[in-house]
Amino acid sequence: MKEARVLIDCSDEKGLVYKISKVFYEMGLNIDKNQEFVDEQTNKFFMRTKVSGIFEVDTLQNAIKAVVPLEAHVRVIVPAKKRIVLLATKESHALGDILIRWEAGELNAQIEAVIANHKDLKALTRRFDIPFIHVSTEGIDRHEHEKRMIEVLGELSFDYIVLAKYMRILSDNFVKRFEWKIINIHHSFLPAFIGANPYKQAYERGVKIIGATAHFVTSDLDEGPIISQDVIAVNHNYSWQDMQSAGRDVEKIVLSRALHLVLNDRVFIHQNRTIVF
Amino acid sequence: MKEARVLIDCSDEKGLVYKISKVFYEMGLNIDKNQEFVDEQTNKFFMRTKVSGIFEVDTLQNAIKAVVPLEAHVRVIVPAKKRIVLLATKESHALGDILIRWEAGELNAQIEAVIANHKDLKALTRRFDIPFIHVSTEGIDRHEHEKRMIEVLGELSFDYIVLAKYMRILSDNFVKRFEWKIINIHHSFLPAFIGANPYKQAYERGVKIIGATAHFVTSDLDEGPIISQDVIAVNHNYSWQDMQSAGRDVEKIVLSRALHLVLNDRVFIHQNRTIVF
Amino acid sequence: MKEARVLIDCSDEKGLVYKISKVFYEMGLNIDKNQEFVDEQTNKFFMRTKVSGIFEVDTLQNAIKAVVPLEAHVRVIVPAKKRIVLLATKESHALGDILIRWEAGELNAQIEAVIANHKDLKALTRRFDIPFIHVSTEGIDRHEHEKRMIEVLGELSFDYIVLAKYMRILSDNFVKRFEWKIINIHHSFLPAFIGANPYKQAYERGVKIIGATAHFVTSDLDEGPIISQDVIAVNHNYSWQDMQSAGRDVEKIVLSRALHLVLNDRVFIHQNRTIVF
Amino acid sequence: MKEARVLIDCSDEKGLVYKISKVFYEMGLNIDKNQEFVDEQTNKFFMRTKVSGIFEVDTLQNAIKAVVPLEAHVRVIVPAKKRIVLLATKESHALGDILIRWEAGELNAQIEAVIANHKDLKALTRRFDIPFIHVSTEGIDRHEHEKRMIEVLGELSFDYIVLAKYMRILSDNFVKRFEWKIINIHHSFLPAFIGANPYKQAYERGVKIIGATAHFVTSDLDEGPIISQDVIAVNHNYSWQDMQSAGRDVEKIVLSRALHLVLNDRVFIHQNRTIVF
Repeated sequence: MKEARVLIDCSDEKGLVYKISKVFYEMGLNIDKNQEFVDEQTNKFFMRTKVSGIFEVDTLQNAIKAVVPLEAHVRVIVPAKKRIVLLATKESHALGDILIRWEAGELNAQIEAVIANHKDLKALTRRFDIPFIHVSTEGIDRHEHEKRMIEVLGELSFDYIVLAKYMRILSDNFVKRFEWKIINIHHSFLPAFIGANPYKQAYERGVKIIGATAHFVTSDLDEGPIISQDVIAVNHNYSWQDMQSAGRDVEKIVLSRALHLVLNDRVFIHQNRTIVF
Repeated sequence: MKEARVLIDCSDEKGLVYKISKVFYEMGLNIDKNQEFVDEQTNKFFMRTKVSGIFEVDTLQNAIKAVVPLEAHVRVIVPAKKRIVLLATKESHALGDILIRWEAGELNAQIEAVIANHKDLKALTRRFDIPFIHVSTEGIDRHEHEKRMIEVLGELSFDYIVLAKYMRILSDNFVKRFEWKIINIHHSFLPAFIGANPYKQAYERGVKIIGATAHFVTSDLDEGPIISQDVIAVNHNYSWQDMQSAGRDVEKIVLSRALHLVLNDRVFIHQNRTIVF
Repeated sequence: MKEARVLIDCSDEKGLVYKISKVFYEMGLNIDKNQEFVDEQTNKFFMRTKVSGIFEVDTLQNAIKAVVPLEAHVRVIVPAKKRIVLLATKESHALGDILIRWEAGELNAQIEAVIANHKDLKALTRRFDIPFIHVSTEGIDRHEHEKRMIEVLGELSFDYIVLAKYMRILSDNFVKRFEWKIINIHHSFLPAFIGANPYKQAYERGVKIIGATAHFVTSDLDEGPIISQDVIAVNHNYSWQDMQSAGRDVEKIVLSRALHLVLNDRVFIHQNRTIVF
Repeated sequence: MKEARVLIDCSDEKGLVYKISKVFYEMGLNIDKNQEFVDEQTNKFFMRTKVSGIFEVDTLQNAIKAVVPLEAHVRVIVPAKKRIVLLATKESHALGDILIRWEAGELNAQIEAVIANHKDLKALTRRFDIPFIHVSTEGIDRHEHEKRMIEVLGELSFDYIVLAKYMRILSDNFVKRFEWKIINIHHSFLPAFIGANPYKQAYERGVKIIGATAHFVTSDLDEGPIISQDVIAVNHNYSWQDMQSAGRDVEKIVLSRALHLVLNDRVFIHQNRTIVF
């Protein structure tokens, strides 16, 4: 007996659920959980099914491919810990939240390394016996720094890069090299307050609620598909530093929640949106 | 071309999704939306599918019944306005919210009548040209009052009774007569503060958040299956009257949200819980 | 015995609380509630005090003016219903919510009239015996329409204009004529999605939370001081129409909450922010 | 120049604000922040003022005592790190959240020790170079275990005991010994689901929202004054274990938020409620 998550996305057409569930039925598999979504505007079909039984991954994958449209994207994933690399700068709350979950065995991922452009988080990372790699920006330009980052990443093996408050803007080149593999936490309720110091922007705009947004990173700064968002109420008593401090709690929870979804293969990307099962 | 909502609940067994989707496929129906849930503890299967195409309701229902377990509960519902009766007492916020939605054509129900044990809401109800029936409690006991309520209801035709802040406790007899047809809004975050004056109880307990709960009514007071809940933050500045006032906004929104779900056939009842698709 | 709300704002200086509370003490007044705030960035002092006792409004106001800086803004307000004019277009949820509160005596305002650029809301308004004034835009340009609106408003007496989903952009001239007297509900979580059809924008951006914002109207579209905001979670199942429908509940509650604050003299405006006591 | 937090609570009487602010004024102190609250039901006055200037703590305290009622509780507190002891059992999320804040210098407290009835959290605690004391329950009864806990605590010096998911019930004797010094995080939205395994209770009740409550511990289990609460939405897809997992995020944030308030002297206890400035 084993388990798999079957993820399918393709153009919608009549009979898809029937044809796919027929494959499961004829292979003697149990459907433990099944979710579908059809985007009516784009006529796209999304399905995520948890099956269990006795099967070969390749056989199942091929059997499904035989009944769905040619262009379909079919993934049969046997649950296993993903590997992630964390990028950070100076703030410890997002990194710390991930480390504590990791230690408790609740993260569902192996942390390969923490890479940072400052040394501030070295001590914290080492407390958890995780490799800390400092890639300094001193005396080098953006291009050179990114080149070194790519070298360091090239020596690691990972499924996702998690920007746990990594305060550097990534180039197009970097983003495209790791397409759909980079997850960021932005310290605002996107699309409000794109860019630098969103808490100061929020303070000056006099908002009554602040938030945070976890999203996949694309070439357009702060514009990638949103995975998770949450908010917290503030008022006139909050300086922008108070907002920043209150916001940190939202940031870390939203990032960890997004990671949980991605690491459990619950997120489809469709255009600039996510379907989250 | 017509649309139907197919709701099925039965014991779970292998192949259910396959067998049911096969029926849809062979009848040439489109699946516009499909949701399933299996309660692992009780091995119960729930499915709600929106289909469209050319079909007879009876034919479809029988075709499904032929492939699911004998004890299965199968409903094929062609979308249509349900009929509701509103019960109220003196407060107008929940009733008013429903009336405004009704007038805008957003309620998806026909309001047959408003029945109240006081006359306070007569003027408001009449503003909307809806029958207002006053069933006074003066000079009669609980039993006699309920008997008269049942008489009045007996002359009406309805799918659901909505308790829009009806401040009388219903007897077992009454509840059983209209099993799973009565929806109530309770002015607390159940199961906290069951019984009388929950806002005063909340104030005395010093809570920092208050809430409201929409639920199906069963013989056990404030114990029926919950459909919807929401909350709002309060603080030491709130007297219990302030809590009551703030709570009214939550009450009316939670009740209307629950009605929306029930009137669109999106709620299954299972034991003391609801499955909401 | 009478009550008053004393609102003071001025440059901060040492001894303000002492000097002002001395005035209350020497006049034999009770302080029933007292709130202060100092904006440290701008060195501005804000104070709102509920006092009760035997006093003349002018005497109290003059006594306070004698102890605070010359430029201080001092208001002694005896609680009374404000008068408001509602501007609307076609949607009834925000207007309806205000009407229901008004009927229950919970609005703390007298509604002088509803003015609309369409006739859709005439029937609803008339149900509540409130004057409905239709100022059509047919065959006339923006300038001419606004001129007629100003004429109509000129014949009314009011403290605030409430834009209850009034879907026309107001000119600088109009806004300045009624400075700090116009309250709007914007159907997004400002500053996200300024401008037209924010729900469509939100859908396309793939956000997981939508919101609404009540604010004072200034010449800069959707940029005035925010009074109140709230949000609601959405997901990939929501079309933009579903978002709009869910958003309406947030809009009406946020607007009514903002009105409650303004009508009870609990809001100071400072630069582009509000201090809400 | 130094800062102090002045906390006063006493019976309300006319002129209190005047008399107290006169003391500040005559000592030449700045009022940086000032908050008051009068509980009308009990006629109790609460005031928290942040002052700065040149002063002696004793002189200021005595000057205030001279103008307020004899029974008044007057505290002049110069901001300094409090000392806390953490009690835990097996779960690491609440403890971990506090440790990460402590490491970042954001906790405003010194952690004297972690005491646990199991050894599971020893490794995590040691990662942060904080003393871990294991007080086993093996082979001894409740009374004996608590005696040993009290011995261990007797050798430490602390302002507060923080129950970071300490899963043992404390005796009256224990609680009274450390009156108003014990802060607990309860894994439910109190007063719902008092007692054991609240998530299982919540699951069985079919609630749509779960929560957590930080409160001072009194002799009545789960009945002490509430400091902070928060909630998160759940649905029928959540098993009770899923609720527990989602609830952990709420628990740790609510506990840390409560700690932040208490450690900054922002909480008054009044009857079974808290006034939080």
